[in-house]
This record gives sequence, C-alpha cells and structure tokens, in this order.
Amino acid sequence: MDHDINFCPICAAPVSLRVPPGDTLPRHVCNACGAIHYRNPRLVVGALPVWEDRILLCRRAIEPRLGCWTLPAGFMENRETVAEAALRETAEEVGARVELQALYTMISVPHISQVHLVFRARLLDLDYAAGEETIEIALFDEAAIPWDEIAFRTVAMTLRHFCADRRRGVYGLHVETVPRPE
Amino acid sequence: MDHDINFCPICAAPVSLRVPPGDTLPRHVCNACGAIHYRNPRLVVGALPVWEDRILLCRRAIEPRLGCWTLPAGFMENRETVAEAALRETAEEVGARVELQALYTMISVPHISQVHLVFRARLLDLDYAAGEETIEIALFDEAAIPWDEIAFRTVAMTLRHFCADRRRGVYGLHVETVPRPE
Repeated sequence: MDHDINFCPICAAPVSLRVPPGDTLPRHVCNACGAIHYRNPRLVVGALPVWEDRILLCRRAIEPRLGCWTLPAGFMENRETVAEAALRETAEEVGARVELQALYTMISVPHISQVHLVFRARLLDLDYAAGEETIEIALFDEAAIPWDEIAFRTVAMTLRHFCADRRRGVYGLHVETVPRPE
Repeated sequence: MDHDINFCPICAAPVSLRVPPGDTLPRHVCNACGAIHYRNPRLVVGALPVWEDRILLCRRAIEPRLGCWTLPAGFMENRETVAEAALRETAEEVGARVELQALYTMISVPHISQVHLVFRARLLDLDYAAGEETIEIALFDEAAIPWDEIAFRTVAMTLRHFCADRRRGVYGLHVETVPRPE
C-alpha cells in the first residue's frame, strides 16, 4: 500500500488533503509550492509459464505470503512496457526464459489499488533457477496444483481459468475484479 | 510525468537515490526514516464509444493537445476497477452512458511510464454533453475521422485498429507499444 504523504516531496512543506480547482477528488496539495501529489493504482505484471502439460509455479521466499506458491510476477517499473515487465519478473524470480503469448488475465484489485496482468507463456527450456525472492520452483499437472497454498487470489483465479480453458481448447482474455472485502 | 522527490513525504528529511538491499534499481530512500518511495507506471483508461457506424470523439479543452480530438480517457484512480475508470472518464468528459464491451487496446508508452487501456463501448443514447475538459463532441464516420488532429498516438493507433477490424468483422485485443523517441 501507499505511504502517507505528510510533507511535500519537492519542497518539504506540509501538505493538505483538498480538492484542487477543476478536480473532483481530494489530493495531497502542498501548502507552500502548490504542487499536487497524485496517487494512482499500480500494475503487477507476470507470466503463466507452461511446459508441455505442466504449469511453472514458484514458492515465495518473502512476505507477504511467504512459503506459498505463485506465478512469477511483480510491480511494473517506470520506463518499461508490460511485456518487458513480464519477462523481467520471470527472469528475476525463476531465472526462466519464456516466449510470451497472449495477455490472459487482467484483474482489478480495487481495495489495494492494483491491477494484475498475466500473460500466457511458453517455457523455452528447463534451465530455471530460483531467484532471491523464491524458495523453490516446480512444474505442476493440473491435479497437483496446491490450491490451498496459492499466495494470491488473482493467481488462483488465473490458474482456474487456465485449467478450464485448456479443457475447452480456447484461451480468451479474462477481465475481472477481486471483490472488495465486506 | 512524475514530480521530483527531494524530501521524504513521511518525515520531511532529505532522500537519496540509491539501490536498497535486495533491489536492483535506484530508489528514493529517506536518509532519516529509511522509507523507500517507489514510482511506478500510471494507467490511462478510456472507452471507444460507437453509435451505429460512427465513433464518438471529443475535442480537448485542456492541455496537453488542447483543441485536438481524442477518446474519453484519463488516469485511473485509486480504489477503482479498470471498468469503473473507463465508465467514469466517459461520464466526466462526454456525459455519455455506454455499455462497455471487450478490452480492445493495451498500449505501453514507456518513455512517459504509462499504459493506455481502451475498451470498446456501445453508446446507449445520444444524450451526451461536453464536460469541463471538453470543447465539443461529435460522431465520426471512418471517412470523416480528423487524423491530423488526433491528440495522442495511442488514440490514433486504437482508431486505426478499429477501422481495420470493423472491415474484417473481427475485433481482437491489440497489445502494443508506442516506440521510444530516438
């Protein structure tokens, strides 16, 4: 989640939360220099790497959800494209070389102001290796997927779609939302 | 583009640009409290509203590209979904009621750290009205699209795909990149 904004990052004066002229939402506005500090949702981008009939998952070595299984994915960086982000995260977390295929899921997670994008991907070889944020990597048949130990709901949703679509032989784009907590 | 970060927005102490432990890129790190201030790409989300054979475009009343034509779109806000953002921007800029259809283009603009998403949309009635950021609104046949006065490259790319896809009768998702300037 976002940090607090108490002081202007440009000039260090205190900020106030108020609706700027012409705007509709409260923003952090500097009381001295008038700069407006917007905050916007972040993109988490990753890949669903497949080798023959098996899906590559990795066990997280970091919080949140340390020890749970996930797909290689992470925050998109400034100055990269969504495809570059998916390839970079796959290289960093599981040391894998993949060929990206179509965008597969775009899932909004509004209560934490994130949008998660996952591309289907073809694993090009089995020379993968756990990066610093990964405990271990394994390839899973559908029957072996550890559903009770999946790290994030967007990953579980993506894996469920993939298993269902593979049975039908048709992989559409799935645009969905993780429901806000009650 | 992003503002400078000279001071910590939490505690107002000076920040330094350095690579935190376990990270690979320089970040703005507070010299006093140690908070790391990440910056990430922003999502711009909009709609391509269609009425019969015509596309709704609106003329911008604000910079950048004041006076040029565009699709209703804008920065996604925290705590909303991509679909909510597309509907909100369409309501704010052109006062139009639309039914969102499939996600149509996802275009990375890496040199300004943005990702632009456009949904195809069906205009539900002709009771649209220019919002504060809009000079005028019009419906365009393909032959009438003012190609030389389109505000943004991502909008022109989206309109070109739409015209070509409509001729073929097939609307796929287009995932593309605006090339970085030389």
